[in-house]
Amino acid sequence: MSKERLVVAVVGATGAVGREMLKTLEDREFPAHEVRALASARSAGTTVPFKGGELTVRELTEDSFEGVDIALFSAGGGTSARFAPHAVKSGCVVVDNSSNWRMDERCPLVVPEVNPDALKLHNGIIANPNCSTIQMVVALKPLHDAAGVRRVVVSTYQAVSGTGQKAISELEKQVRQMFNMQEPEASVYPYQIAFNCLPHIDVFLEDGYTKEELKMVQETVKIMGDPSVKVTATTVRVPVFYGHSESLNIETEKKLTAAQARAVLAQAPGVRVLDNPSENIYPMAIHAAGEDETFVGRIREDHTIENGLNMWVVADNLRKGAALNAVQIAEELVERSLLDIADPGKFL
Amino acid sequence: MSKERLVVAVVGATGAVGREMLKTLEDREFPAHEVRALASARSAGTTVPFKGGELTVRELTEDSFEGVDIALFSAGGGTSARFAPHAVKSGCVVVDNSSNWRMDERCPLVVPEVNPDALKLHNGIIANPNCSTIQMVVALKPLHDAAGVRRVVVSTYQAVSGTGQKAISELEKQVRQMFNMQEPEASVYPYQIAFNCLPHIDVFLEDGYTKEELKMVQETVKIMGDPSVKVTATTVRVPVFYGHSESLNIETEKKLTAAQARAVLAQAPGVRVLDNPSENIYPMAIHAAGEDETFVGRIREDHTIENGLNMWVVADNLRKGAALNAVQIAEELVERSLLDIADPGKFL
Repeated sequence: MSKERLVVAVVGATGAVGREMLKTLEDREFPAHEVRALASARSAGTTVPFKGGELTVRELTEDSFEGVDIALFSAGGGTSARFAPHAVKSGCVVVDNSSNWRMDERCPLVVPEVNPDALKLHNGIIANPNCSTIQMVVALKPLHDAAGVRRVVVSTYQAVSGTGQKAISELEKQVRQMFNMQEPEASVYPYQIAFNCLPHIDVFLEDGYTKEELKMVQETVKIMGDPSVKVTATTVRVPVFYGHSESLNIETEKKLTAAQARAVLAQAPGVRVLDNPSENIYPMAIHAAGEDETFVGRIREDHTIENGLNMWVVADNLRKGAALNAVQIAEELVERSLLDIADPGKFL
Repeated sequence: MSKERLVVAVVGATGAVGREMLKTLEDREFPAHEVRALASARSAGTTVPFKGGELTVRELTEDSFEGVDIALFSAGGGTSARFAPHAVKSGCVVVDNSSNWRMDERCPLVVPEVNPDALKLHNGIIANPNCSTIQMVVALKPLHDAAGVRRVVVSTYQAVSGTGQKAISELEKQVRQMFNMQEPEASVYPYQIAFNCLPHIDVFLEDGYTKEELKMVQETVKIMGDPSVKVTATTVRVPVFYGHSESLNIETEKKLTAAQARAVLAQAPGVRVLDNPSENIYPMAIHAAGEDETFVGRIREDHTIENGLNMWVVADNLRKGAALNAVQIAEELVERSLLDIADPGKFL
């Protein structure tokens, strides 16, 4: 397959992540001969911006993937479950942003800075991890290599854009309502998100954890390829439009001083250390928005245990947390000539 | 001293906490014969609302405390350092909301639900703990009594009202600016707080922690009266007007199941358990605002350690986190007849 002839489809092209995927393909000059925008019948015929012009959105059907080499899916778990197998059947490699295939043993779950080699074993569907997991493992992996991460306690501060375009509009609308002395109306979230914190992301499970919290636990192990890395999470939605922040408490096998951790992270791919408290330099959502890197700061030794660190990790949840990571996976697939699918019928 | 003849002064009466102190004295029908509002010369002559009428603010001077039995200070550490000793000299018991006296061995640091007996040893100045510490220890103490708290990892989500009236105005102004396509201006905080998270509360110390984080570590030990309770903290300002939220990860000596922890907390003074995920019932800042209790929910066993719990703790930072706790201390002092000062010159 010549790079110059690649056909790429973006499924869910009208959503917050889909639009960011198109922008990322453009920004990174992905070597696509043609880019197709696919979405539900409701959006078919509308347009989305791409390379200074527009793409007309086509309806997603089982036949949409004829002649498509790579499809980037960001259209919800149900859509991925139904259509990704048909894409693969058509010889198209799928990079899926939903949670549907992430824990499926047939599907690698990949963050290119962490486990790019997992791509070698793909069967046609590669899963893109959850946004809050991606930025965490980008920061954890170099520390794991240096000192062996044993346990992580993470609390998140997640932007509404992680929920999608509707949630961005809801936060904006609620703020306007409140500033006009009206009651804020909640429909995307169970309660008002404006000027509030919601300790509730995705659905609740039987043990009291949310599915979002479980994703951080399970996906981290799968990506790091090490079941000894234990994670416990509390995931929280905050009234921020773009950029997830995370407070990480990390216990390692070997001692790392704050200075050593800083040095390790400064060399790590995809990481930018912003850590100079005396100059008020630390990562923040407003600075991470629109950026590709995962920002790490507030690196401190935790004095309550022998080998402990606290740190603050921020990334653009739509870019590194979703669109960018998916495009990076596609780039790796092209770079490593991994677009062949041995058994296109495997998922049907 | 007859309860009916008590004279109470509120120092810093025009600030966010000072106003809440007046409101709390009123709401709880504190047995004061007279309430005096004191503030800096700049505010003298203005009025503050009290019991349907108004109090004229007088200038705070060294002589302001003649005939005053209890003074509630909320006017910053410098003002407390300078004026509290003069108040005590006048025979007035001080309940101080600043950080100035908290770690002073001569001054009890009191949360009435946790260590009321510490009041017996006061020398004229009683310190009110930091807002983020108060709600945490209200939730920790019953668990400590039941199972022995060994280690706490806390990440906070703190409202701007904790900084004061100016910060409330700044968040509001920044939101208006952004919704009018203007650049948000930051003056109270180093960066924009609107739609952002700032991992920076109070000043940075040499080891990379903030003073706010150190307060949570040190004050918890002093209040709980047990140096074996280890706390590590990451304190974060979020764009919320009222109500601090906290994500707590707790390691105990003895095992507590989530159900056991819930039962212990349901019986605890000052605590209200809101923990029914299947009905979307959990604590939130918008519901805690204006309430006296500390709300606890999202109680889950932490599967990464033998005896671990995660939980989510929310309280009104101006009420339980400041004004209410100070008024509760004053109530205890009256109730227990602890208004005598053995050595009024001790702090001069």
